Amino acid sequence: MHDSMELVASNKCFGGWQKRYRHRSKVLGCDMVFGIYLPPQADRGAPLPVLYWLSGLTCTDENFMHKAGAQRMAAELGIVVVAPDTSPRGEGVPDDPDNAYDFGLGAGFYVNATQAPWSQHYRMYDYVVSELPELIETQFPVSEQRAISGHSMGGHGALICALKNPGRYRSVSAFAPISNPSDCPWGIKAFGHYLGPEREHWQAWDACALLATASERLPLLVDQGENDGFLEEQLKPDALARAAAAADHPLTLRRHPGYDHSYYFIASFIEDHLRHHAQALATRED
Amino acid sequence: MHDSMELVASNKCFGGWQKRYRHRSKVLGCDMVFGIYLPPQADRGAPLPVLYWLSGLTCTDENFMHKAGAQRMAAELGIVVVAPDTSPRGEGVPDDPDNAYDFGLGAGFYVNATQAPWSQHYRMYDYVVSELPELIETQFPVSEQRAISGHSMGGHGALICALKNPGRYRSVSAFAPISNPSDCPWGIKAFGHYLGPEREHWQAWDACALLATASERLPLLVDQGENDGFLEEQLKPDALARAAAAADHPLTLRRHPGYDHSYYFIASFIEDHLRHHAQALATRED
Repeated sequence: MHDSMELVASNKCFGGWQKRYRHRSKVLGCDMVFGIYLPPQADRGAPLPVLYWLSGLTCTDENFMHKAGAQRMAAELGIVVVAPDTSPRGEGVPDDPDNAYDFGLGAGFYVNATQAPWSQHYRMYDYVVSELPELIETQFPVSEQRAISGHSMGGHGALICALKNPGRYRSVSAFAPISNPSDCPWGIKAFGHYLGPEREHWQAWDACALLATASERLPLLVDQGENDGFLEEQLKPDALARAAAAADHPLTLRRHPGYDHSYYFIASFIEDHLRHHAQALATRED
Repeated sequence: MHDSMELVASNKCFGGWQKRYRHRSKVLGCDMVFGIYLPPQADRGAPLPVLYWLSGLTCTDENFMHKAGAQRMAAELGIVVVAPDTSPRGEGVPDDPDNAYDFGLGAGFYVNATQAPWSQHYRMYDYVVSELPELIETQFPVSEQRAISGHSMGGHGALICALKNPGRYRSVSAFAPISNPSDCPWGIKAFGHYLGPEREHWQAWDACALLATASERLPLLVDQGENDGFLEEQLKPDALARAAAAADHPLTLRRHPGYDHSYYFIASFIEDHLRHHAQALATRED
């Protein structure tokens, strides 16, 4: 095992293993914990594809693994699932001065910050796109077939990771993503601090802007609850739909009456997302 | 709605509704919160059967509903699931003087305490067997078909509720129950305080003792992880197996290599339990 990697927890689950590891992140300049689900097929030789899951504001690596019920289908389909934390953590990592939930710790927004004091540690984009997959791909029996998904802040994170890296992910999906962070209070606050006040610098980190120039037509699967309390002010799926239509980018935007922003919503549709990813991973199998 | 019942939360989940209610419990002398999952069939007329789930030490009404993934099969099978809290709560409810996790708040053990100062509030048996079902059966579209299950302390709770009440439950199951509380540290501590030092009074609350005199041969389904850290000292499934064999009581005790005491274990096998209950509820349908 990698020098800096330490097993924190290990639980058998649906015939496979749910594990947590702590490791030193050079990119983030701190120790990080991630969760990984290894389905039963991980013991059987052939390298497995990996789905990266990016969680939302206030979450850690644990929320998704505890609450989404994803392991059942991951075990059936033979997909490894990796859930990183949502920001750098630990001594020396700065937080929102007001300890707000929507910025700083638990709210890294999956960007590379350019502004002091955030730029030293808040480089979650490099962490989830490069450093973490490198670690996973050297330490576990996985292939380089990657998929990415997430919720809310992490739903947007999944979209930009895929849109900014043609060929790197075989499929992408999102639950209730913050579709257009340049134009909603959560995003304006976070981008203003992490990226600075000049809004033209935000475009490289906004899914709606990135859709206009995407060179790869990777189909987007997005689920959104219609009773989501953040729908109109923060999430703005219509902006994503308009940007996809303008760019002729394939988007399946499913609107679910009655569902809200909670993990009960995610649990209800995670099977569809895992099947969506499995199909892309399988049909493009090398 | 009942005068004293207040809706605390409501989330759409697998086409049905996951809700939390607060109500005044006369039996416990305090306000209590419970979770209820109403599957989509609840809107369609015919009264549905109810599975009561009793959680383990340190849990509240929320752990099972968040982590077990039971709603998916409950929705498919048309079963209402009710999860009460694990002890009385609130101002005036005494706790373990040392704030230990295994006695007092979060550790009611589903008995009726006879000893001061516990006997005033700690009457979880009457609460889960009588008061809560009465409330559920008057306030929700349910039948009087009841099933009961639980984990650890709550697994034992499920066993004794069924064994002490022939005809009241159509099926019973347990995950990693504290099988013989009269003979393990958790049980000896709790029973000693709640029921007093005279051990003959404990027999009426111990599943192994109750099996000897059970008048109804309700089949017991018990799942136990073989890597459960509490297996030998606290859970003692062998004692349950011996008691069932001696009484010629039907017991299916499944031992699962590698699994531990966590909700990852419960999530892995909850579908089997829901199907077990559904079959009993269906085959004995009125």
